[in-house]
Amino acid sequence: MTIPADTATPSAVIDRISLVLDAFEGHGRLTHAQVVRRTGLPRSSVHRILEQLVRLRWLRRNGRDYELGLRLMELGSLAVHQDRLHRAAVPFLHELHRSTGYVVHLAVLDGTDVVYLDKVGGRLGNAVPTRVGGRQPAHCTAVGKAILADTEAADFFGGGAVRTKTRYSITTAAQLRAELAKVRAYGAAFEREESVPGFGCVAAPIGEIGRAVAAVSICGPIRRISLDHRLAAPLRMTALGIWRNVEDGEVRVHPTLQQPRPSRPAPKLRPGVHAEPALT
Amino acid sequence: MTIPADTATPSAVIDRISLVLDAFEGHGRLTHAQVVRRTGLPRSSVHRILEQLVRLRWLRRNGRDYELGLRLMELGSLAVHQDRLHRAAVPFLHELHRSTGYVVHLAVLDGTDVVYLDKVGGRLGNAVPTRVGGRQPAHCTAVGKAILADTEAADFFGGGAVRTKTRYSITTAAQLRAELAKVRAYGAAFEREESVPGFGCVAAPIGEIGRAVAAVSICGPIRRISLDHRLAAPLRMTALGIWRNVEDGEVRVHPTLQQPRPSRPAPKLRPGVHAEPALT
Repeated sequence: MTIPADTATPSAVIDRISLVLDAFEGHGRLTHAQVVRRTGLPRSSVHRILEQLVRLRWLRRNGRDYELGLRLMELGSLAVHQDRLHRAAVPFLHELHRSTGYVVHLAVLDGTDVVYLDKVGGRLGNAVPTRVGGRQPAHCTAVGKAILADTEAADFFGGGAVRTKTRYSITTAAQLRAELAKVRAYGAAFEREESVPGFGCVAAPIGEIGRAVAAVSICGPIRRISLDHRLAAPLRMTALGIWRNVEDGEVRVHPTLQQPRPSRPAPKLRPGVHAEPALT
Repeated sequence: MTIPADTATPSAVIDRISLVLDAFEGHGRLTHAQVVRRTGLPRSSVHRILEQLVRLRWLRRNGRDYELGLRLMELGSLAVHQDRLHRAAVPFLHELHRSTGYVVHLAVLDGTDVVYLDKVGGRLGNAVPTRVGGRQPAHCTAVGKAILADTEAADFFGGGAVRTKTRYSITTAAQLRAELAKVRAYGAAFEREESVPGFGCVAAPIGEIGRAVAAVSICGPIRRISLDHRLAAPLRMTALGIWRNVEDGEVRVHPTLQQPRPSRPAPKLRPGVHAEPALT
């Protein structure tokens, strides 16, 4: 059976489209030749895919350059807007920003990264180089530590090279293990200039203990923000409120390092789970 | 020549993927059967595409339901972040929000709609039902009127039914023509509860006169916001600043109703183009 030159299995086509779009990561504008180089796909195939994606407005052409297009903005925005956790969280995020004045993030775990679903920051937000849809190594952030609380540190790092964001970033499994133990004790995670120089964060996990699906954090200038129980308490309250607000109890599980679990019942918050630990 | 059952032209595959993703517009979660109904595609084809998109994280599965996934959030966010106009505008949008206290939007024209590239709103922003990546009929908004300034109103409406958002929305070519004449005279567009009840907006076009590529607006409660030259002046200044800030002068042209034009030279702002008209 001969497959003509301009056909391919749908799976191969989808992979090629995905490869072409991935090529734009970190590079705002690419020519046809650059996309060919970055993807390793045949010139004619790249040409056809680029033309089709421009037609659908997933890309736009500007002279000889191609850029990500309006339709991707729309679909991405829709994905955030339709996210039930995000919808449940929005009013809490704004209230937390209003009451603390700090930059508020909502994030989920994706592999060994956190991905930000929302950022409420006002003017201070411009000073923190994060963005909705952006990602950071989980172990460098308070949100990441909060979600990872029950993960085994050695499993997290595996055997590969440890990524760092600043000279204060965690680099060993022992450091991460100590940090995660603190999260389990305090119900909150702290981060001191480990992802952005000059900034510190406090985060609380959202979801049942040991099964966090996301985390909420506040970030502020390290000289001003109190990285202790004073901010841990409102963070935990916010996380609790978001979790209660998740509609109809059926929370979709974001991909995590942990094994897939059967879909879970309505969130039952065991009283005391988030009780303030003695800070002596 | 026989095309085997699981192959198709790349163009047909791309169209099917696009159809499947479009099905999620307005519907957060869909089952396989619902996607089949909404797209009209064969069950087996939908099944294969859904599985592939889940694998790529463009969709995620939650039990029997499918939802838009993290990878789309990332690509969409990247599309906004890499947009040169957006990057040039960000500091101006925050400054405009800070100095006025109103909700600031950056929008481009797409067909007969405007699509929002950014929204800076603080708490007031929650009261205005717009979102980044969202769209509105252009003629119902100040940003739309600002971008359309040099369009012929009759051409814009064509022969179809005119969409409205509120009882104050423009419904005739004559009304739109009068509004667009005001934009040309004042360098700014006004909107009075034409898209959201209780809110009014002022917008200024970004780009050379007659060739606007985008617009910036402020929105506030209709009882409080001054829909006159007092806000038109800072809006025009902001639009001018954004246009000057567009890097290296080569502005990509967003799709508009107008005929495609050859790529344009560096923006040369003719002095006086945006000069304040006499308001007598």
